[in-house]
Amino acid sequence: MDAMMMGTMKDMMSGGMETMDMSLMQACMDACSACEQACTVCSTQMMDCAPACMNCADMCNTMMRAMMRTQGMSPAVMMSMLDACMAMCQLCMDMCMPHSNKSEVCRMCAAACKACMDACMAMRDSMMAA
Amino acid sequence: MDAMMMGTMKDMMSGGMETMDMSLMQACMDACSACEQACTVCSTQMMDCAPACMNCADMCNTMMRAMMRTQGMSPAVMMSMLDACMAMCQLCMDMCMPHSNKSEVCRMCAAACKACMDACMAMRDSMMAA
Amino acid sequence: MDAMMMGTMKDMMSGGMETMDMSLMQACMDACSACEQACTVCSTQMMDCAPACMNCADMCNTMMRAMMRTQGMSPAVMMSMLDACMAMCQLCMDMCMPHSNKSEVCRMCAAACKACMDACMAMRDSMMAA
Amino acid sequence: MDAMMMGTMKDMMSGGMETMDMSLMQACMDACSACEQACTVCSTQMMDCAPACMNCADMCNTMMRAMMRTQGMSPAVMMSMLDACMAMCQLCMDMCMPHSNKSEVCRMCAAACKACMDACMAMRDSMMAA
Repeated sequence: MDAMMMGTMKDMMSGGMETMDMSLMQACMDACSACEQACTVCSTQMMDCAPACMNCADMCNTMMRAMMRTQGMSPAVMMSMLDACMAMCQLCMDMCMPHSNKSEVCRMCAAACKACMDACMAMRDSMMAA
Repeated sequence: MDAMMMGTMKDMMSGGMETMDMSLMQACMDACSACEQACTVCSTQMMDCAPACMNCADMCNTMMRAMMRTQGMSPAVMMSMLDACMAMCQLCMDMCMPHSNKSEVCRMCAAACKACMDACMAMRDSMMAA
Repeated sequence: MDAMMMGTMKDMMSGGMETMDMSLMQACMDACSACEQACTVCSTQMMDCAPACMNCADMCNTMMRAMMRTQGMSPAVMMSMLDACMAMCQLCMDMCMPHSNKSEVCRMCAAACKACMDACMAMRDSMMAA
Repeated sequence: MDAMMMGTMKDMMSGGMETMDMSLMQACMDACSACEQACTVCSTQMMDCAPACMNCADMCNTMMRAMMRTQGMSPAVMMSMLDACMAMCQLCMDMCMPHSNKSEVCRMCAAACKACMDACMAMRDSMMAA
């Protein structure tokens, strides 16, 4: 998501969303996108993590899109979705980690889940403080 | 989702998910699917509810798919996603209701959101009791 | 998708889409939705059909949504997407069929793919004739 | 999509997909992802391009995921989906371009659609030559 698009999104915000930290949100959207991609690839390995990876890919895509459509969000709904996204990423990471020695894809997927959780938490903390 | 498919899904459940009430889950998947469809149509009207409708359609689809892939879920993650889905449906309903007099689509979308919230709550209550 | 919603969608159509046969389109949306669900369940089995099932679930969902948003479609684009959806369903069916003896889910998934292909073809034929 | 992930994906390819040009495919996945994001933001403006933008966002996401799951694709299905994606991007661009003077988001969305079409065409040409 380039800077000009982010600036335009900022201008369209209202309803309590306009206080959001745009750099944290940008980082969170990027982390969600990266996690969707890693989970999508990981799910093709047909190991026992696959269903969790598919769930995580869908949740991360939904999370990313919601951040791009804040006109249809409120701070409370955003936090509830961040909680769900973090919980899903945690589960996916827990299922991929045991395979990380034998599968490079699982190792990368677990890392992408961790990065997404961290970015969601940073954004949630920032919203709580606002 | 037909009964034979539901029976097969039940047989594949484990990890604490096998205690789930399959009739409540089937009703919840159907309500999510109906809500995704109503929200998708409603979003094309380009009224101020549209971004919430798009967010709700995506969340409902993600919720429905997660119920079909319980091998990659845990009861705790399921409940967190149900919370997010209910919060999103509530917001969408709140944005569509004021238009319900002038738009039949908004009236139907708000009703689908309410039905989805109720089905998610019934499933959540059942999981808490288990 | 209930009849009242279909009627409202019909009223919103323009740009060459208003000649579409609404009963064929309704049948096609329902077949896409059923196929997305069957493929989603089938993909959790972690057999070699799983990646095709995931691709098919996504394509069917995208196809269904596009039929609900004809304001953002043209007859030519609709036909191109129907072709892609039929090709994807055919491939998924071809991968699930060899498992249909040992997996009831694969048998149901292949049947849902066939029904979706047929519904897409009926709609495409009708558009060609219009 | 980082280089290590791409290398692993390459190793998992078969069925005629292993001859694909991985750098063109990486560029195409990135263009699809960027187009999904631009279309998602553009759809929130509630201008008459919004339904096309939503359709385009969904098609681009489905296209991107299919490239990440080539185990469930064949060259013929891939080309059919690329055709559908290019057709959808063209329509979305045609609807956003007339707004490009008054909306910076529409201008960026049209540019992302054009870039996605070009990347899909490059990949399709390369597959035809193989």
